Amino acid sequence: MRLHGNGIVAQSGGPTAVINNSVYGVIREWQKTDGFGTLFGGLHGIKGILQEDFINLSAQQSSVIEGLRYTPGAALGSCRHKLKEEEYATLLQIFKKRNIRFFFYVGGNDSMDTANKVHRLAMKENFDLKVIGVPKTIDNDLPFTDHCPGYGSAAKYVATTVMETGIDLKDLLSSNKVTILEAMGRNTGWLAAAAALAKRDEDDVPHLIYLPEKPFKRERFLADVEHCYRKIGHVYVVVSEGVTDENGCYLSADSCRDAFGHAKLGGIADALKTMVEQELRLKVRSNVLGTTQRAAMHYASRTDADEACLVGREAVRLAAQEMSGLMVTLVREDKRDYLTTPGCVELRRVANTEKKFPLDWITEAGNFVTSRFLDYARPLIAGEIQVPTKNGLPDYVRLRLGEVKTKVS
Amino acid sequence: MRLHGNGIVAQSGGPTAVINNSVYGVIREWQKTDGFGTLFGGLHGIKGILQEDFINLSAQQSSVIEGLRYTPGAALGSCRHKLKEEEYATLLQIFKKRNIRFFFYVGGNDSMDTANKVHRLAMKENFDLKVIGVPKTIDNDLPFTDHCPGYGSAAKYVATTVMETGIDLKDLLSSNKVTILEAMGRNTGWLAAAAALAKRDEDDVPHLIYLPEKPFKRERFLADVEHCYRKIGHVYVVVSEGVTDENGCYLSADSCRDAFGHAKLGGIADALKTMVEQELRLKVRSNVLGTTQRAAMHYASRTDADEACLVGREAVRLAAQEMSGLMVTLVREDKRDYLTTPGCVELRRVANTEKKFPLDWITEAGNFVTSRFLDYARPLIAGEIQVPTKNGLPDYVRLRLGEVKTKVS
Repeated sequence: MRLHGNGIVAQSGGPTAVINNSVYGVIREWQKTDGFGTLFGGLHGIKGILQEDFINLSAQQSSVIEGLRYTPGAALGSCRHKLKEEEYATLLQIFKKRNIRFFFYVGGNDSMDTANKVHRLAMKENFDLKVIGVPKTIDNDLPFTDHCPGYGSAAKYVATTVMETGIDLKDLLSSNKVTILEAMGRNTGWLAAAAALAKRDEDDVPHLIYLPEKPFKRERFLADVEHCYRKIGHVYVVVSEGVTDENGCYLSADSCRDAFGHAKLGGIADALKTMVEQELRLKVRSNVLGTTQRAAMHYASRTDADEACLVGREAVRLAAQEMSGLMVTLVREDKRDYLTTPGCVELRRVANTEKKFPLDWITEAGNFVTSRFLDYARPLIAGEIQVPTKNGLPDYVRLRLGEVKTKVS
Repeated sequence: MRLHGNGIVAQSGGPTAVINNSVYGVIREWQKTDGFGTLFGGLHGIKGILQEDFINLSAQQSSVIEGLRYTPGAALGSCRHKLKEEEYATLLQIFKKRNIRFFFYVGGNDSMDTANKVHRLAMKENFDLKVIGVPKTIDNDLPFTDHCPGYGSAAKYVATTVMETGIDLKDLLSSNKVTILEAMGRNTGWLAAAAALAKRDEDDVPHLIYLPEKPFKRERFLADVEHCYRKIGHVYVVVSEGVTDENGCYLSADSCRDAFGHAKLGGIADALKTMVEQELRLKVRSNVLGTTQRAAMHYASRTDADEACLVGREAVRLAAQEMSGLMVTLVREDKRDYLTTPGCVELRRVANTEKKFPLDWITEAGNFVTSRFLDYARPLIAGEIQVPTKNGLPDYVRLRLGEVKTKVS
């Protein structure tokens, strides 16, 4: 007989443009499923759950729930928190007290580790709890899934921005000859690679892309920039924030501040800017998009949003089938006519591992990506989202967190 | 009897998302006007005209001309070039040789100075040339016009980005407590001020805005950030790149690199980031949007695009009425039901002058803007542009520059 209990969904780690679509998927599928109890939203991830900061998601207006489909950020709030050993026990006590039998955690690598540990502790204590991880990250570095919800939208935004600022660079004959754009992505180059989608012709931007998967060589980089400048007259460089030198040292980390022989306050874009200006005497503009990459719902990918919703729905379906300790995955069924279906993988296999950008998708020269990557990424950025506007700006929704907050005494 | 001759249109200075709309307006109005000759496009502004790098705009496909309405950058190419005395004479010789009797120059302050000098030289030499300046700048700093085409789109983009990254900041409980966004705008604060449009409630982002019109005071700034942090728990700061200290020294300029007692490679955002991290021990993320602000057609303002087109059309109408030495302006006829009509002003009055952000639109504390600015700016960002897409990215057009280029032997 199927479990009848309450559920909780929470969000963790850096938000994405479409992470709320996953919460939407969980809510709507939960509502469709017979016999389930109350679905709580845990505020600010595991951190809020520990403080019993819940809201009753059923008490939210349906129009606000619908608005999650076009609202960026983590509507339930998010956190970066590594649970201590004793906090796992506290968490389980709270779940027991509230008869929470379903835990849906939307997050990246670290969150899957947390979810896995909760799952294992529940098993150990013989508490019937279904734990399902819902993947999200703009970094696209979760293993076992073809790609991660959140990546497509960030990729679309980065490629669009590179295309637009590339037009600006090409059109304006000025002293700025080089643009360097710094892309997020931690230790993997997926997001920086997405800039390649902007290129239509040989001389088009971006001209050079550097990923963390290949050690960064200063002399090689300067030669690349110079070669490109001589050939085209301007150079557009995209570099991943996680690029390291041959000693594995982050170019942008504070510990490496003297790597180029000078104090460095900014990130890698500024380091490379200084390098090009000093060595090649070319004027450089650096664009550091920062959190815009994971927040730009105004030009998010329809495909990505739909898939983020799909993995949320699938999490509830798996739990309803008495499954636990799993993360939902996306399986690319058809490469030609892009089609994905949801799959799953054990949380323990995902926890704390990273999917690197394949080395054979990087060109031999180490400064661009191959067409295999483009074939992989192109479907992920397809389609746009119509965001309602008010006074000329996106009219995003907000969950009412205060009014319906439940605090257990 | 009306002049029958050829015309030339060119673009100058930093591009905007909608500057091509002005070229579109010139082309379409030119085509409607009886008896006009060939309309040339001067490539890369005055610099290309000097080299007789022209294209025949009538020879372009109509679909490409239509595409200018949704394509950012300067489709004809742009430049930053200050004409030398002898180059003015060369320019006029070229105009005479090609029977160019109409010169439409789309640009900002510097370009209006150039246009004015061309106009004066033509008068002096008794060469019948109609010179009309078409305003464009994201900085919104041209005088005598209610606002400048290009500003509305940049304002919309900045406000949207602040709204979205503000949601990210608020939602994620992490070590990053402060976000600092650096806005363009040279010596005026119009674009940084536009971030205020994102604010809906009192505690909403942005919390603090600093404009170049008020001297920046370090202690005051730190107190503002600390106060806001204690009250709200996170702080979103928007700062104009042109902010100066009480000695009028740019905080971001190289000459001021030691203003805060340390080496500084980045712009003002990085300088403030270091200041907050060192003095308040709060972790800061800085977003430097760079040229995205003037290139983001994917979320440009419909109103702005339409007005950019309008001023282009009006330039041709004025010239057809035998007017010269003028810049088109936008006149706000009705403040309540936003309505603008085109006006004009003598180029000599515009040349090299800047319209500062009004001091009485800045709050007394010097860290935000008043509702009078919001009333002014809100209509300018209204409406969106449907940009066609291809493979999930904007499908911008390109003028065929090579094929139809005319080089006089």
